[in-house]
This record gives sequence, structure tokens and C-alpha cells, in this order.
Amino acid sequence: MLKNTEKTMDKLVALCKGRGFVYAGSEIYGGLANSWDYGPLGVELKNNIKRAWWRKFVQENPYNVGLDSAILMNPQVWVASGHVATFNDPLIDCKACKTRHRADKLVEEWHTANNITGVAVEAMTNDALVNYIKEKGITCPNCGKAEFTDIRKFNLMFKTFQGVTEDSAAQIYLRPETAQGIFVNFKNIQRTTRRKVPFGVAQVGKSFRNEITPGNFIFRIREFEQMELEFFCKPGTDLEWFNYWRAYCHDWLLKLGLKEESLRLRDHEKEELSHYSNATTDFEFLFPFGWGELWGVADRTDYDLKAHQTTSGESMEYFDPETNEKYIPYVIEPSLGADRVLLAFLIDAYDEEIVDAEKNDTRVVLRLAPALAPIKCAVLPLSKKLSEQAEAVYHQLQKHFMVDFDDAGSIGKRYRRQDEIGTPYCLTFDFDSVEDGCVTVRDRDTMTQERVKIGELVPYLEEKMAF
Amino acid sequence: MLKNTEKTMDKLVALCKGRGFVYAGSEIYGGLANSWDYGPLGVELKNNIKRAWWRKFVQENPYNVGLDSAILMNPQVWVASGHVATFNDPLIDCKACKTRHRADKLVEEWHTANNITGVAVEAMTNDALVNYIKEKGITCPNCGKAEFTDIRKFNLMFKTFQGVTEDSAAQIYLRPETAQGIFVNFKNIQRTTRRKVPFGVAQVGKSFRNEITPGNFIFRIREFEQMELEFFCKPGTDLEWFNYWRAYCHDWLLKLGLKEESLRLRDHEKEELSHYSNATTDFEFLFPFGWGELWGVADRTDYDLKAHQTTSGESMEYFDPETNEKYIPYVIEPSLGADRVLLAFLIDAYDEEIVDAEKNDTRVVLRLAPALAPIKCAVLPLSKKLSEQAEAVYHQLQKHFMVDFDDAGSIGKRYRRQDEIGTPYCLTFDFDSVEDGCVTVRDRDTMTQERVKIGELVPYLEEKMAF
Repeated sequence: MLKNTEKTMDKLVALCKGRGFVYAGSEIYGGLANSWDYGPLGVELKNNIKRAWWRKFVQENPYNVGLDSAILMNPQVWVASGHVATFNDPLIDCKACKTRHRADKLVEEWHTANNITGVAVEAMTNDALVNYIKEKGITCPNCGKAEFTDIRKFNLMFKTFQGVTEDSAAQIYLRPETAQGIFVNFKNIQRTTRRKVPFGVAQVGKSFRNEITPGNFIFRIREFEQMELEFFCKPGTDLEWFNYWRAYCHDWLLKLGLKEESLRLRDHEKEELSHYSNATTDFEFLFPFGWGELWGVADRTDYDLKAHQTTSGESMEYFDPETNEKYIPYVIEPSLGADRVLLAFLIDAYDEEIVDAEKNDTRVVLRLAPALAPIKCAVLPLSKKLSEQAEAVYHQLQKHFMVDFDDAGSIGKRYRRQDEIGTPYCLTFDFDSVEDGCVTVRDRDTMTQERVKIGELVPYLEEKMAF
Repeated sequence: MLKNTEKTMDKLVALCKGRGFVYAGSEIYGGLANSWDYGPLGVELKNNIKRAWWRKFVQENPYNVGLDSAILMNPQVWVASGHVATFNDPLIDCKACKTRHRADKLVEEWHTANNITGVAVEAMTNDALVNYIKEKGITCPNCGKAEFTDIRKFNLMFKTFQGVTEDSAAQIYLRPETAQGIFVNFKNIQRTTRRKVPFGVAQVGKSFRNEITPGNFIFRIREFEQMELEFFCKPGTDLEWFNYWRAYCHDWLLKLGLKEESLRLRDHEKEELSHYSNATTDFEFLFPFGWGELWGVADRTDYDLKAHQTTSGESMEYFDPETNEKYIPYVIEPSLGADRVLLAFLIDAYDEEIVDAEKNDTRVVLRLAPALAPIKCAVLPLSKKLSEQAEAVYHQLQKHFMVDFDDAGSIGKRYRRQDEIGTPYCLTFDFDSVEDGCVTVRDRDTMTQERVKIGELVPYLEEKMAF
């Protein structure tokens, strides 16, 4: 019987743990609920994703600059942004078995189980949710009883205390998003870079949300990394820029090899939009557990800057030197989770290929774009006798990118090991190499081979990595 | 009278704020004590430092691999590491004016003020500190009285709560160092990378310490970024490896342009060493406020892995396939603060140069190594008429590194603006450029100029950036 080559989360998680992409966090102490550590390959993949994002959104983009603001901010920031008042999940407990649930998720899961569509759960108030659960007789997924408490609002921000007292004056939060660090620095950045609107500010960094129900591996985690852009433009030009960034983000994903068919761009209907938003598109990716949000692109108008102007008393107005107008810029926000898009790239790249059906021979290949692959190439001496000379090639390439060296086992086995971690090129150093100064370059995807001069390897590989 | 060209913290901080290297955190809300945000230039400088470290410590080093472990860990990690029990500062209050002090710092400052040397303050117990303060009649630096409370131990870890309850079961900490994330993953990494000892694990990431007295700009901050390596070796070979890494770190700083005379390597005396350490060297840098620790390199023996083995019950032993021995590896730890070394690079690079003494003309130059400079080159059209063609050069170079474009003001003014932010090369596009396809490359440090073909700019500049 042929092996089951279906792509599943279980297989991917096993590969991640087994090859050093992602480990369970604090594993030797039994873990810490849904925390994950990126291993030697995972950190390279994640760095490559962050660099690819920075490159297209900062380095190569004529409008944008970068920022790295602190995780710990003055708590007034979160009053202004609305997070203190409204960044809550509707928490509900089962009176019978004491398990804790998110009321909205409870309803959504019941809808999925019963094939009910068209009910806008996200628009329901807490009272509406409680009534709906009672009316429909929705039961606890754990014990099957239908005895729930009322809903309590649970704020998702992690609290901590700065300084040597624990009174409320010193209470601060771990930021739940990187965006606000950009908004509060809008004037600083505009002034010191002398940028004219339109311009954008990009930031990569950790955010923290005390999710009630994290899960699906690294899809929803409490400590996560964001890549956010806040693009400031003149009111009235916002929809134009919204379309620019919507297309720009789409292009970034496709250029890095994400399959068009794994992706759908869902534009929010008018009634689904936040009250302050002129347009929003969710980029959704087809995960093994279903479609999930990957990238949110939103026209947030002047909502955020205005909120900070009101709360802080500092003007957020921009003076346009060309038209002599003063205005609060509108904001386009493409917001992407680094962990989530890493998971999407991994899933999309994962492939089990039948090499020889008769022999029931399959190989696992991570078809990551060369720009993203943790290891760009592996140097494989055909014989241990060639190890020293092959190592010289390895050291030469190391100056340019991440390279692996492997002299253990048959060439076939070494190819498979590299396929599994997504290394796009294997360079075999054989006895001819000593004579002709070439290595055999084997392509991960096509398995074709070609001879390349050692001195030409760097430009050869760099061209493959371009995106 | 000639301008005062002395290098001071005030000047540097003003430059950082004015040009977008570092802003006060949450500034529009009056800040958050001693928090800082990296602006558009600061984030590039910091990224370049982190990349330069990663490149030499991971990519180009044959022994090391990377890791990115979570900030939030199982609290048992900090029990095992000793942080829960002993990561305390000795807190003392002035009864008269209610100001709060670190008792050890109080004594050290009094020593400095009175030119007293040779007293090992760090070895004093809390009782000894209190008695010493009383005996010597040390007074409050704020009010001058000598009425202090007893010392209370203040744990420097930030606490937070994960999950929906705030009882102690859910209490966790923000990591005070990245090192423990490496130790708890030692077996995972060894297994999945199939590395043999000796090998090292490198990590870059945020850590948090609730310092009682942060200060000196970004020298001591509560939220900071570390670059740590834990290098695992066979017991008995540890001093050899200690010397290897001590020299490797030194070399890294010098290659990136830090001046030899700004640096001193202070080897700990036997009595100064931690009880578990076989050797420790502090790299100290001469900041405007005095010598300060930059990089600690320590031979920590098997202290950390043993502690985790004891607390977790998981074996931390390594089986050596060549000698069939089992042992717990010894660890060499070079630990560097990214913010602190960024400050050192900035201070070292800061220069006010007298260009023309008669005209009292000085220029501010940041003599950053090209590898670290936020902007690698600036494209300057000589006339606005050439802007379009110069922009084509700018776009071409952007694909390779961070480039600036500036067409505002005289060439001289534009040079000075770039000098001040450390841009090593200015490329002037003039009317001849249209004919000969060359630009004039002006060197930041020597102010010499040479004509370079536009098509050869990328390799020309990349060679300058190599380190």
C-alpha cells in the first residue's frame, strides 16, 4: 500500500520538532501552555521572513522608514487606543465541569458542527451571546451540559508592575500590538526624517495577548511577533493607498512562493467594517484546520491619531507645505503575524513526493523559496577523503549565507535530509572537483544536476535567492 | 572662540533625538521612566549590529547554531537558575526624604566621591552593607541625612499572570536573560542538529529587569536586548575555549571599528569569581560617564546544566560517541547587551572635527564602520534638473542596501547632514554623470572624492562594507 502523502498538522509539527524548527517551550519543565521556541532552523526561517519583509517594506520602498519601539509603554497609550476599555474576550464558565470558554467561539463551533452559516457572531453583544446560547441549547464541549455562567469581560493585555511598588500607579502592560508605538511617535518621526505625507513607518516586534484559547501550534499564541506598517496619507487619497498596499502585500506573498490557490482575499462588507474603517481586507490562508486569517489590511482613517491627540493633548496634525493645509493623516495598516505567516509558508512548502511508486519510495520536501530557506546550500563531499577540500568550499560560502556541511552517510540519504529542511541546493564535491574546480549542484525541487565552477557559486546562488 | 568639541552624553543624546536614532519612549504621554524607542536610523543601526553578531557568531562560525526561545517561560526555569531566590537588589530607603536607593550603589558612589579603592562591595552581605553605611556615616545623596531603613531584598524579575486567573499558579516572569532558554533546550538542540560537543547556541532577544536605578540613556534600561552565546565543551577543555571566545569577541569589536583605547579587558581575580566560575573577563568601555561593562565572558563550568538537571529531573548528560564517555558539558558564556554596545559604537564614532579653524567651521561626523552605518550611501543630484536620473541610481542601489536620496539644499549642507548620521559615502550625480555614466563618491572620513562607474557601485560599496 502506498504511504499516505496527505499534508497534516501532525506531520508538520513532528517535522518541526524533529528537525529543529520549533520546540515546545520550557519542555523539560512540562512546558508552558502554548509557548514555543524556534530551534536552529526555525530561527533562520523566521529571520529570513522578517528580513524579506523589511527589505520590501523598508529598504526597497521609497515611502517607508523603520521603527523599533519599546514593549513596555506608558499605560495611557492603551487608554487612548481603547485597549484598556474594550480589548476583552467574552469569558464564560461551565457550571457543571468548571471548564472555561470564549462565548463567541462556543457559538461559532456550534455553528460549524451544525452547518449553520450567515450569523454574524462578531457583531453580537455579550447579552445577545448569552441569550443565543440559552435559546439554542448550546452545550459544553467538555461535559455536554448546558449550564453556563454569565459572561465576564476578560482583558487580554498582560499586566506587570514597573518600579518597586505594586500599586496601580506602577501597573503597566505588555503591548498587545506594535502599532501604537508607531502612532505615538508619528510627530517625532515626521520631524526627524523631514518626510512629507504620504509616508509609512514599519515595525517588527513581539506583542503579547493573554488569549483564553490559544492553539493550533503557532497559529494563535500568547507571545507572538508582528510585522506592522502604518502608512500615513492625505484624507481622500486613502482608498487609493489602501489598494496600493493590498496589492503590495499580495505580491510579497506570491513572490516568496506562497501558492495563489492557498490564499483568498476577503474584502469586508460595509456592515462588517469597524465604525472607523473605510475598507478592510483579510488575507486568508488555507491551513490544514481550515481558512485562517493571515494578514489584515485596513484603512483606519484618522481614528488612531485622533484618539492620541485627544488623550495626550499633543497635536497630531500635519502641515502640508505644498498646499498650506493642516490635517490629521489617514492611516492604512497592513498587519501581519510573523509566526503565523511562517506557519503558512511551512505548510504551503510541505510536500510528500512519490519518487518511485513501485518501490513505494517517497520523499518529504519543503519547497521553501530560496530566499526563505534556512540553509541556502549544503556542501557534501562524495567521500570522506575529500572532506578537507570540500570544507574549504563550505568556509568560502559561509561568508555569504547560511551553509551546511554534511559528510555522514550516502549521498542519497544526505539529499533527503536536506530536502526535508528545505535546502534548495546540494553541492557535491567529488573526485573530479579536484581537477576541474567544479561541484555538482543538485536542485531540491527538480532533482536535476549541473556542474558549476566553485568560483562562480556565490553569484549563481545569489541569483536564485533573489525575489 | 573655538567651539567646544568635547564628546559628551548630552550632545550624543541630542543627536540621537534630533536625527531619529533614539526617542524617549511614550513621549507624548510624558514618557515611561527610562524607556526608549529606536527611530528610523536607530533601528537600522541596531539591526546592523545584531546581523553583524549573528553573521560572525552563527553564520560564519563552524561550531554554533541559533535559537529564538520565548520570553515567557515555565516559572520553574527561574527556580532552577536561582533567579527566584537570589536575583535581588538590596533596596534601602532614606527615612528623612523617602528616596529609594540601592545600598551597594550608595556605598560605591561614596567610595568614588572619597577616592576609596580596594573595598569589595559586591562581596558584602546585606547586613555588612547596613553596618558599613552606619559606620562610615554615609548620607543620603538627596537630602544629606544619614537615616536609612534596613535593607529589603527586591527581586528584579517582572512578574505577570498568564491565563484568566491571578493566583500564584499562573504567575510567570518576563525573562531576565536569554541564556536559560538555551540551557533548557540543550538536549533538544543537540539531538535535532546531531551536533557533537563542542558546539554553541546563540540567541538574540529581549530581556527585562526591573532595575531600581536605571539610567545613563540606553546604558542601563529595564527592557533591553541581549546577544548571548552558550558554548558547550568537554570539562577540562573549558579554559582553552574560554580564551578562544575571549579573543573572538575582542576581534569582533575591533573589526567593527571600536577603538582599542576605548576598551579594556578586565580578568576577574580568583576571589572575585562566582563560586561556579573558572574564569571571567569583563570587557569594559570608556563611556563619557566612566568605564562601564560591555561584554561579560565567563566560564560557568557545568553549573547551569546541572541546576536544570536537578530541578527538572531530566538528564543533561552528553554521550561522547568517540570516547564513550558521559558528562555534563561545561559552558562558556559571552553575554552582550545590544543596546549597550550600540551606545558604545555611537560614542566611539562620534567626532567633532575642525574643518577650518579660521572660519570656526566644525563638522559632526559619526565615524561608524560601513557595516554598521544605518545608511550605506546617499544619492545627491547636483541640481534638481538631475533628480529623475539620480533617482534611477537610488532605486538600483536600494535593492542591495539602505540608501538615502537627498536633493534639498547645497551639496555642502547635504554632506554635513549625511556626516552627522554616519553615512560613509555620498554619491553626487552631476551633469557629467549623464555623459560618462559615473558619479562622484565622497568619503565621509577623508572627504576625498573619486569618480566611480554607476554599474560598478554595488561591488565597490559592498567591498567597503565587508568586515
